[in-house]
Amino acid sequence: MTIHKAAILGGGVIGGGWLARLIENGVEVSLFDPDPQAERKLGAVLANAERAYSKLTMAPRGARGAWALAGSVAEAVAGAELVVEAVPERLEIKRRVYAEVEAVNAEAIIASSTSGIMPSELQAEMAHPERLIVAHPFNPVYLLPLVELVAGAKTDPAHIDWAKGFYAGLGMHPLHCRVEVPGFLSDRLQEALWREALWLLHDKVATADEIDTAIAYGPGLRWAQMGTMQTYHLAGGEGGMRAMLAMFGPCLKWPWTKLTEVPELTPDLVDLIGGQCEAQSGDLDPRALETIRDDNLIAIMQALKGNGWGAGRTLAAYERKLFAQGAVKPAEPDLAKPIRTVEMRVPPDWTDYNNHMNEARYGQVFSDATDALMRLIGADGDYVAGGLSYFTAECHIRFLDEVAALEPVHVETQVLGGQNPGSVGKKMHLFHSLHHGDGRLLATGEYLLIHVNLDTRSACEPAPAVGARLAEIAAAHAALPQPDGVGRAVGQRR
Amino acid sequence: MTIHKAAILGGGVIGGGWLARLIENGVEVSLFDPDPQAERKLGAVLANAERAYSKLTMAPRGARGAWALAGSVAEAVAGAELVVEAVPERLEIKRRVYAEVEAVNAEAIIASSTSGIMPSELQAEMAHPERLIVAHPFNPVYLLPLVELVAGAKTDPAHIDWAKGFYAGLGMHPLHCRVEVPGFLSDRLQEALWREALWLLHDKVATADEIDTAIAYGPGLRWAQMGTMQTYHLAGGEGGMRAMLAMFGPCLKWPWTKLTEVPELTPDLVDLIGGQCEAQSGDLDPRALETIRDDNLIAIMQALKGNGWGAGRTLAAYERKLFAQGAVKPAEPDLAKPIRTVEMRVPPDWTDYNNHMNEARYGQVFSDATDALMRLIGADGDYVAGGLSYFTAECHIRFLDEVAALEPVHVETQVLGGQNPGSVGKKMHLFHSLHHGDGRLLATGEYLLIHVNLDTRSACEPAPAVGARLAEIAAAHAALPQPDGVGRAVGQRR
Repeated sequence: MTIHKAAILGGGVIGGGWLARLIENGVEVSLFDPDPQAERKLGAVLANAERAYSKLTMAPRGARGAWALAGSVAEAVAGAELVVEAVPERLEIKRRVYAEVEAVNAEAIIASSTSGIMPSELQAEMAHPERLIVAHPFNPVYLLPLVELVAGAKTDPAHIDWAKGFYAGLGMHPLHCRVEVPGFLSDRLQEALWREALWLLHDKVATADEIDTAIAYGPGLRWAQMGTMQTYHLAGGEGGMRAMLAMFGPCLKWPWTKLTEVPELTPDLVDLIGGQCEAQSGDLDPRALETIRDDNLIAIMQALKGNGWGAGRTLAAYERKLFAQGAVKPAEPDLAKPIRTVEMRVPPDWTDYNNHMNEARYGQVFSDATDALMRLIGADGDYVAGGLSYFTAECHIRFLDEVAALEPVHVETQVLGGQNPGSVGKKMHLFHSLHHGDGRLLATGEYLLIHVNLDTRSACEPAPAVGARLAEIAAAHAALPQPDGVGRAVGQRR
Repeated sequence: MTIHKAAILGGGVIGGGWLARLIENGVEVSLFDPDPQAERKLGAVLANAERAYSKLTMAPRGARGAWALAGSVAEAVAGAELVVEAVPERLEIKRRVYAEVEAVNAEAIIASSTSGIMPSELQAEMAHPERLIVAHPFNPVYLLPLVELVAGAKTDPAHIDWAKGFYAGLGMHPLHCRVEVPGFLSDRLQEALWREALWLLHDKVATADEIDTAIAYGPGLRWAQMGTMQTYHLAGGEGGMRAMLAMFGPCLKWPWTKLTEVPELTPDLVDLIGGQCEAQSGDLDPRALETIRDDNLIAIMQALKGNGWGAGRTLAAYERKLFAQGAVKPAEPDLAKPIRTVEMRVPPDWTDYNNHMNEARYGQVFSDATDALMRLIGADGDYVAGGLSYFTAECHIRFLDEVAALEPVHVETQVLGGQNPGSVGKKMHLFHSLHHGDGRLLATGEYLLIHVNLDTRSACEPAPAVGARLAEIAAAHAALPQPDGVGRAVGQRR
């Protein structure tokens, strides 16, 4: 069943998140919330979601569904094929709302967003209880993929099957919680951690910030890509989860949390857990999983580095230290030869389906080389912040040889156009040569840049010190031989 | 104090991880482990770490420290300034090892990797207990930044101060656990979740895989960048943690985990928690934090998409669906005009310090356009898998106008060199024009590609069907006017 029109009851953080996800995927929505501030609050959630969706994927976004605020539950659910319930977490409120729905709509599937109330309780007083399911999302609903699906005793199982397809179509990852327990799966696990956190706060063992640091710089990075079971499967080394249970099983008896009730690790339970962890990983043995885990952790930390946050900031600080201690560039380069502007290894994710560095990454290396040359002449971060910069106007790249992941490369940069010292003016004409660590010439890049005013976005003279420094290098480099490839057009015969 | 030589006692998953991190940062290490398989197991950990470090950062890696296996504890710790203890989690074993250390080395700081045994217990029988600290890392130790520092009752506080600097220098994020409790902070929180997971397994509520899904597709993505406190601070909407506690506080009384002992949420405790969450976030109000969180979640999911794992796979599937339903390209393009090969929005992370799309990304868009043209002529994934492809030999890009983040762009591609139909042979000569959605011409890219055999990496004729299709398009495009900019060299006057 395709959903054309949905109703959402409740416009808080969860209801608003559902609204964003549904209309993003072309569903028409009518939403009711008695809060007089609902429209303003929803506007803020939708603005967040709009911002997020514009960045989430490179694919063309579909046509958005229309939405409107309704004046009542009855108005919202009229004609709806799906009713998303996101009202406060009180059984009596939810049951009252269902009664209002059933008074006017006998057909729609009712999907409760409850974080943990059992659907059997929710549906107990309904006229058509078979249509109630739990579809429990996670904040922010417009981004996080997980949705827990739970049936009550009277739920029609076909609705769970339908829901798996429906929520997957919204870009989500449905998890069918097969056994109905309060809190389902995710919140049982989260709630245990949360209760321990509350004790740590209550007992003044740690502050909120310390408690968060204890997760976000360690276990949380693992949990973003493998859950507790698979993570511990890898803590056992070659022996996997079975070795882990043998090693840390005794700790279960120790007061490592305030929450000390634990099941006994009988041989049967160890066998059940060990077997499930092995089954979970399929063909991937612990060594293969370690490689996947490491790639994921690196990618996550690099992603956070891009945002200047959390473990990404730690990585950035470490990287700055390495750059500082590894700085091979002399403060004053020898101007009697081209300047070494880049020295690096090819990142593995820079390679493409031909198993070599993608052509666009050659451009990136040359862009980095230009930046390094700019810093050398004083057109650095402060200079750009002051409103002046260079824009690239034109380039010509010759791709002469291949280079594979992790191989060492470096760039030598020669400043051209300095035949008449002092005449460089608004232009910067560079010739970059990309070399393999073994000496092979991999590519050349001829670049013409124009000095600009960042306010007017138009050409202007550089600051005197920058212009003078560039002219000085250009004059020195004028003594170097003209490199092979300068002034060539694409396809031109040598 | 700078550490030149360290000893590691224990060569398992943790000891091996410490070995990798220490030698990566130039520390010389002597390691003892009685396991006859230690060398082989350490080799596997070091191979993992080498692979990870080569990808972790673009900075030049420092000189590695030497390392060797020692034949005994005494041999390992002789002359060491730091002793890293990573032996099994049994108090009597650890105390015995410390006695062996103290018999030969009275100076070194002893840093236990224990996951939760209190340092006051560890140091109780030591001759020099003031030198014992806990420095608790997380697997994989060579990658995860968190290290918990804990002092025992007799520990010299100066050693904790020293450790903060030392471990930060190894690229780690030290967390000083100020109050000594069993399990410290991170493992208390992890252990609570783990105990609940064991109950879910024991009670057959869920399988290991389902339990992991309940974390890795939802809460885990949040925990990689904000801990439980800040995450829930944002679940309260505009009211932050105080609203969250009012909303979900009653759930603490419900059996949402098997672990039901909870502190009472007195007004004082609510005030303490609310105040700490506000302090933790500094100047960032919940709305600002939501933006940061969303950027982090998107970056993490995109990072995982690159690795084809977990929530990244969900995103990839959603993206494929959007591409399929949004496919604007006709199966058979109109050859009477240039072919629309790319249609996208500029990703925000493609912009640089000049607040416009970085020059290297122009090259990436054109690379994508070339790929699209290749698919159109049948040089697709299967073709490349079969050992044939095109390599770019040369390009010339003119950067004509700027484009900002999220703005719509598209590429029109014209096949050149088809003046003599059937003569394209090994060469593919393309002219890409990048347009803004508003029609402005942003850049042109003239590309010469050579058809290659991927086994020999040398030029060869394309498969007949591919060559014929390219010739057909070239012949049709020969009727189009020659685009402005063809055949230009860098700096050439018009």
